[in-house]
Amino acid sequence: MTGWVKIVGLGPGAETLITPEAQDVISKATDVVGYIPYVRRITARAGLMLHESDNRVEIDRAQHALQMAQDGHRVAVVSSGDPGVFAMAAAVFEAMEDGPEIWRDLDVQVLPGITAMLAASARAGAPLGHDFCAINLSDNLKPWDLVEKRLRLAAEGDFAMAFYNPRSKARPEGFEKALSILLKACGPDRVILFARAVSTQQESINVTTLGSATPDMADMRTVVLVGSSLTRVIQRYGAAPLVYTPRSVPEGV
Amino acid sequence: MTGWVKIVGLGPGAETLITPEAQDVISKATDVVGYIPYVRRITARAGLMLHESDNRVEIDRAQHALQMAQDGHRVAVVSSGDPGVFAMAAAVFEAMEDGPEIWRDLDVQVLPGITAMLAASARAGAPLGHDFCAINLSDNLKPWDLVEKRLRLAAEGDFAMAFYNPRSKARPEGFEKALSILLKACGPDRVILFARAVSTQQESINVTTLGSATPDMADMRTVVLVGSSLTRVIQRYGAAPLVYTPRSVPEGV
Repeated sequence: MTGWVKIVGLGPGAETLITPEAQDVISKATDVVGYIPYVRRITARAGLMLHESDNRVEIDRAQHALQMAQDGHRVAVVSSGDPGVFAMAAAVFEAMEDGPEIWRDLDVQVLPGITAMLAASARAGAPLGHDFCAINLSDNLKPWDLVEKRLRLAAEGDFAMAFYNPRSKARPEGFEKALSILLKACGPDRVILFARAVSTQQESINVTTLGSATPDMADMRTVVLVGSSLTRVIQRYGAAPLVYTPRSVPEGV
Repeated sequence: MTGWVKIVGLGPGAETLITPEAQDVISKATDVVGYIPYVRRITARAGLMLHESDNRVEIDRAQHALQMAQDGHRVAVVSSGDPGVFAMAAAVFEAMEDGPEIWRDLDVQVLPGITAMLAASARAGAPLGHDFCAINLSDNLKPWDLVEKRLRLAAEGDFAMAFYNPRSKARPEGFEKALSILLKACGPDRVILFARAVSTQQESINVTTLGSATPDMADMRTVVLVGSSLTRVIQRYGAAPLVYTPRSVPEGV
């Protein structure tokens, strides 16, 4: 039997947002590895071993997956969203590069998924309808100064922005600092939206402005989107507002 | 009958990358509108009208969709990739905002899809595995100066980058200028990759460096990804190289 590792994106939560390609891989896998809540999204069946692991052990998990593939297992590494966006794909390649030479010859593939910011954007309208940046606000693995620098440059470039991991339990003060940098750079009227657990039963979307935003509007299940200077809100009767960033930028903006 | 508009992402090309949610909407639609090659991806059936239109008539198409929904039709507006990323969703909201008040009360929803940059990233490894920017290089709807400004700021922030519409037939010189700005800002060894028609039979992935990149490596079916300063290439025997951006940034980079 020839082993493989396929790094699979399960999308933001709803079953109907998982690609047929990802479902097919899961149906053929002998082993599923991933962070506990993602592995719990996989239906158990005979012949499939589910390996749950905790957060922040991504490299251990990646090594485990590669070792099992070397031993002939068909391993699905599962992430929520898209595995290439602040998720497991990079961790697997880090483990591969630092591991035994033979791991480079393994059949390792990444299968894309619907990432949180695009699920959130769709639900709210089209806030990322023009040039945008995606920034991981966690400073677990990078200096906080770099987060601040990227926020300032993104604002200077008038990009729309999407923030992953806005607010960790361990370091809630980071997001407060981020909001204050953005408020100064973009002004109080700039649109910001908090999209929590999109496509699940806990989904909520909160559209507001930087002047009214507070850090407690986000938790670790929230993706935060900030508009460009041109982002607009369409108010509706009896329905949530729609947020979109126009496709055009006039001269001189 | 109550009409609606659902703006649907068909993903990068493969049938297996279309979400079940999107397939369900298409199966319930009475009308499909979109750019010719995207509408041709929809299987004809009794009771479904296919309305193809040319490129650059996005607002006309959006108005047509909204008008049909007002008349009770169930309209799927189809884009390739994700409709919220340089595609039809923003156009529909522009038309809604400028149109009759009653259009705001229509049932209009966006359904996310696998966008080209994430399909390309998955195929190549995980080049967007850390903070990144998505920039539309076309200057049809924005001043070229703004494109240049965003390129310089993205490079200064050491973001990975994804470029849509790198090279139009009408203005091929834009991409040449973009490459030269990036070469100056990021140096000749920076990884760049050209991903064409990912997940279709015409798929090709070309991994190279800014020092070796030439404008003719891209066309309008190509998405171009540029790594950060930390992006790595894993060479393999008998298989394409893997490109990934590590999750960590050491202090002082």
